[in-house]
Amino acid sequence: MAHVKIIGAAGYAGNELARLLISHPRIESLRLIDKQVEEATSVWKFRPSLRGITDQQVVPDDDDSAADAVFFATPDGVAMRLARKYLERGMRVIDFSGDTRLRDPETHRTWYGIEHQDPALQQEAVYGLPELHRDRIRESRVIANPGCYATSVTLALSPAIRNNMVDTGMLIADCKSGLSGAGNHPSPAMHFPERFGNFNAYKITGHKHVPEIEQELSLLHGGEVRLSFVPHLLPVGRGILSTLYAPLRESRSVEEIQSVYEEAYASHPFVRVLPQGEECNLKSVQGSNFCDLSVHVDDRLGRLIITSALDNLIKGAAGQAVQNMNLVLDFDETDGLMQAGLWL
Amino acid sequence: MAHVKIIGAAGYAGNELARLLISHPRIESLRLIDKQVEEATSVWKFRPSLRGITDQQVVPDDDDSAADAVFFATPDGVAMRLARKYLERGMRVIDFSGDTRLRDPETHRTWYGIEHQDPALQQEAVYGLPELHRDRIRESRVIANPGCYATSVTLALSPAIRNNMVDTGMLIADCKSGLSGAGNHPSPAMHFPERFGNFNAYKITGHKHVPEIEQELSLLHGGEVRLSFVPHLLPVGRGILSTLYAPLRESRSVEEIQSVYEEAYASHPFVRVLPQGEECNLKSVQGSNFCDLSVHVDDRLGRLIITSALDNLIKGAAGQAVQNMNLVLDFDETDGLMQAGLWL
Amino acid sequence: MAHVKIIGAAGYAGNELARLLISHPRIESLRLIDKQVEEATSVWKFRPSLRGITDQQVVPDDDDSAADAVFFATPDGVAMRLARKYLERGMRVIDFSGDTRLRDPETHRTWYGIEHQDPALQQEAVYGLPELHRDRIRESRVIANPGCYATSVTLALSPAIRNNMVDTGMLIADCKSGLSGAGNHPSPAMHFPERFGNFNAYKITGHKHVPEIEQELSLLHGGEVRLSFVPHLLPVGRGILSTLYAPLRESRSVEEIQSVYEEAYASHPFVRVLPQGEECNLKSVQGSNFCDLSVHVDDRLGRLIITSALDNLIKGAAGQAVQNMNLVLDFDETDGLMQAGLWL
Amino acid sequence: MAHVKIIGAAGYAGNELARLLISHPRIESLRLIDKQVEEATSVWKFRPSLRGITDQQVVPDDDDSAADAVFFATPDGVAMRLARKYLERGMRVIDFSGDTRLRDPETHRTWYGIEHQDPALQQEAVYGLPELHRDRIRESRVIANPGCYATSVTLALSPAIRNNMVDTGMLIADCKSGLSGAGNHPSPAMHFPERFGNFNAYKITGHKHVPEIEQELSLLHGGEVRLSFVPHLLPVGRGILSTLYAPLRESRSVEEIQSVYEEAYASHPFVRVLPQGEECNLKSVQGSNFCDLSVHVDDRLGRLIITSALDNLIKGAAGQAVQNMNLVLDFDETDGLMQAGLWL
Repeated sequence: MAHVKIIGAAGYAGNELARLLISHPRIESLRLIDKQVEEATSVWKFRPSLRGITDQQVVPDDDDSAADAVFFATPDGVAMRLARKYLERGMRVIDFSGDTRLRDPETHRTWYGIEHQDPALQQEAVYGLPELHRDRIRESRVIANPGCYATSVTLALSPAIRNNMVDTGMLIADCKSGLSGAGNHPSPAMHFPERFGNFNAYKITGHKHVPEIEQELSLLHGGEVRLSFVPHLLPVGRGILSTLYAPLRESRSVEEIQSVYEEAYASHPFVRVLPQGEECNLKSVQGSNFCDLSVHVDDRLGRLIITSALDNLIKGAAGQAVQNMNLVLDFDETDGLMQAGLWL
Repeated sequence: MAHVKIIGAAGYAGNELARLLISHPRIESLRLIDKQVEEATSVWKFRPSLRGITDQQVVPDDDDSAADAVFFATPDGVAMRLARKYLERGMRVIDFSGDTRLRDPETHRTWYGIEHQDPALQQEAVYGLPELHRDRIRESRVIANPGCYATSVTLALSPAIRNNMVDTGMLIADCKSGLSGAGNHPSPAMHFPERFGNFNAYKITGHKHVPEIEQELSLLHGGEVRLSFVPHLLPVGRGILSTLYAPLRESRSVEEIQSVYEEAYASHPFVRVLPQGEECNLKSVQGSNFCDLSVHVDDRLGRLIITSALDNLIKGAAGQAVQNMNLVLDFDETDGLMQAGLWL
Repeated sequence: MAHVKIIGAAGYAGNELARLLISHPRIESLRLIDKQVEEATSVWKFRPSLRGITDQQVVPDDDDSAADAVFFATPDGVAMRLARKYLERGMRVIDFSGDTRLRDPETHRTWYGIEHQDPALQQEAVYGLPELHRDRIRESRVIANPGCYATSVTLALSPAIRNNMVDTGMLIADCKSGLSGAGNHPSPAMHFPERFGNFNAYKITGHKHVPEIEQELSLLHGGEVRLSFVPHLLPVGRGILSTLYAPLRESRSVEEIQSVYEEAYASHPFVRVLPQGEECNLKSVQGSNFCDLSVHVDDRLGRLIITSALDNLIKGAAGQAVQNMNLVLDFDETDGLMQAGLWL
Repeated sequence: MAHVKIIGAAGYAGNELARLLISHPRIESLRLIDKQVEEATSVWKFRPSLRGITDQQVVPDDDDSAADAVFFATPDGVAMRLARKYLERGMRVIDFSGDTRLRDPETHRTWYGIEHQDPALQQEAVYGLPELHRDRIRESRVIANPGCYATSVTLALSPAIRNNMVDTGMLIADCKSGLSGAGNHPSPAMHFPERFGNFNAYKITGHKHVPEIEQELSLLHGGEVRLSFVPHLLPVGRGILSTLYAPLRESRSVEEIQSVYEEAYASHPFVRVLPQGEECNLKSVQGSNFCDLSVHVDDRLGRLIITSALDNLIKGAAGQAVQNMNLVLDFDETDGLMQAGLWL
């Protein structure tokens, strides 16, 4: 049984994490903190579906209580200032922000436009994608919980890249995300009448999830990998569906690649490689920690096409953080995470 | 051919009106004014679908140009201060706000909570529901363009009340509106992730459209009529569907009441009384100036049940304003208003 | 620990029930049956979100295995033919259909238009709304799981009627339901392009949930209660929001009625009477077994207005069935049912 | 003034075309034909928004009346059998199907899987994308109205390919379409509860619009062009947004390419090349005949990225057919087509 804290519990990712931890069988105590609240406030004020389930409060400040792990469900720039003191008190840190995802300081500076306040933290962190780094995560003090898009893209491309099946010179990730990914701050761009029935691309050449994808794929490839990444806004609440395009280095049957993918994820409970002929979709993953993958080969043009679906708030954020916590605290990797999505 | 001005052209109702007037066959010049803009701005910045159709600008201030009519697509409290000077220059005024809808100053004070700045304007105005007051509108200098909900409810109940068919002591209007009715200012309540797939009632006992409905129905009844009115927020862009309940004073067949409704609207091109067995719906009216009505009798309980559908931005706002303009400027009532909705 | 069977496991309600029972802590074995399948088929073919969670099969026929309870998630007309043999084998029967909801054979004939094949079953059944009949359900062999609309309306009106606070001569239920309530058979009326952004009323004077609402409210009132009931189709997946109107017999403050409602449901874990000033909505209940109620008084007109929200597939169907099973099998009433909805 | 006929007027594309032609200023008579109707049926039975606007009937069979043009808004395989006799009577033919889009019989056989019944028709037809073939369309007797996806992709890539700016060996089209594109036949895949909030790819390596895109781009390139094309289903009614990826042959500034695009479409009223910094989206084009394009360069990787938005039923089908008709009948190209979309 563990004691954990969430910094940033009043945001969408933070209260999704609270929802998961409240019903987690190994959590003994949970402290919810958010400096946006002025006084202790029931967490169901932020997530009304929790009313009647819990009276857990969100408080403005942390106290001196000990904990086994602390989550930073905070914007970029917070963990780099605050994580150190939690580490020093012996807690494991799981950070949702870009502060810990990149190992190269220069890349961090370029994409995030801020100076890192704790470079050693950045160096120590392990990229928290359990399907790539499960063993290192178990041993780590600092886990960088991946970006939602980055999880979707990296899980989809990893087996092909690790097995050197594709030409890394022309990778393309066309990603479509529901709007919960944009957080809970109202804006003209998220105003219901402007988004209802709408769809568009955004940040076409400059989304901050690009460098972490490239970092991880480059590690797998053993050389620099770069990709075009275009995110789009879907008029739905939850879910990311990504379509990945990669030229095959040499001709391969779809069955062969299917086997590679199935084998790659055979020991990973939250990646479902769908059988040939079944296409992943958002409804199948909304509400769950699964990432679904469908494998296709365009034989005419010699290209691998992978589609990938996950829930941006769960496998793309809070669920993955719980999965990481389960690893660092030596729980079963699936503890508290085997809820089925609703589908309807 | 006419010259017209719109005050408040940058809001949803104002730019819907601009859209309609730009293709109106009898409009020679159109001046778009909104104090929210700092400099002349193409109207398609606010309504992107107009790009390539018009280069009409929205300007921050009016000039001294003459016009035949001026529209106030403004919040409550503006027309009462500014309309007078336009009247004095000989223009007809069509006001979208609550400043001119109520004849009784005390009722206005109670429901709007502000002191009227031009009581004579309030007295002079004619309630701009052409299906009730077509002849008086033609002669009037000041037209109070009705509220969206008020149009929906009043058109649905008028024939029954005018013909003394229902007991006015137990009228109920259960109304459901798309979210464009809430205007273009972002707010937590209109934030896409919170509204998507959601539905709820609001302002259950205090919506400002109540007194204008009661005023008009009381006039028709020749005695005080009051009703319960509960608005709800539909997770769609456009459209109001209202369900009206009224006890029948004496037993009537649905065919008899159907005839009364058909006759009541026989000369009114924008009210479609659907045949028995067809049920009105939002898609049929979205994008058009029609109000559809379906007539039902619950024989078991002796109640009249009417359903009513319209587009809140057209028959509920800008289209009705054009219809009123057509009347005051002696154009054909349907000029510029016979577009079919898209349905899909 | 219990053994249970679901007849009709391939429909929306049946596979929602399977989803709930698969993670229910007191279920030892589950048999899923549906004559629509030709051979054993994984339940996740019908509910793709269950893939990776369970390999439970849906089979075309039942076998002779014993069970503690059997659910009929079947259309009207099935339980009346098949339930008897399960009763005779000592199983408790929980029926989702209209076959067991009504005690009066004539009312059944009138509203359902079919002759009952097992009148004794109809007489023996207890109406499975635990908030009304918890003790009788515990003792019963046959439970009639209520209709989704009926649950929404009956929970909303019961406290007022039991306490004789309203005039039962003018009750109105204006109900709005998501489209999962229509089942999984494609039809023009449920074709996505025709429903997207649409809204309309249907079956305005003849929905089959009317007589069960009237039966239950009449029992509470100690005299005949009848109501107007108008269902509408919301363009969302899950959820029913009902707005109920009832004239107050005498003037009452909203605080007084609020207290009556809070007291009525104080011992019922799945009804949340929201505090004054908070309005129930669909998102708060989607995915959970809660029914939320908001209490309003229109002082101007002396009317009680209640709004009620629930998930039609959970508290309106499968969740309520589990709640009933928990009672008949002497489990804790909340076992397997305390999941929070997702909200986003 | 012209006389025209629509074969297939009861389908989505056919009644969209009827909607446009009913308000077209140059149409004198319109005959609506669909063998799916058993007797003359008001067109508003299929498109309820037309009620009160027109009483035009859809009839099961054509008569011997003369006409200037006939539209085949029919599935593949109809025009190849029926168009000839209309040509022989001197009418221009505008075909919505795949029967006339491809010049190469072998390619037609491969992708459509049927034998062509009128190869001369196929040879004579001109591909009806006015932005590519305006002059040839004017002279042609048979116009192949392009596929909706094909219009979106071809308009987006043409300027780059004609100007030899991109490497045609690695073109990718990732396209997202609203569900009206799937027609009006109910199916499990289009059942509202299964599609609401959902999103997925389909026909990943075999959509029939591929060969017409490749045919047209190859003509522009002067050599074979092939592309990967992945369509996706958006949970909205109307609109296609495509994202196109192409490696630049040599480094180019975005401003240079922007100029090429602006120039390419300067004389084409229905393509709006948006200024740098503005991103096309579905709402801006829903309800109109415009195709919007946004030009991007990923300098890091040397790739051109174009986004393209249009209304699949208008510029992607019926509007384009009217544009083609305007050309063949020597009307102004924009006649009847300058309606603004609603935006909200």
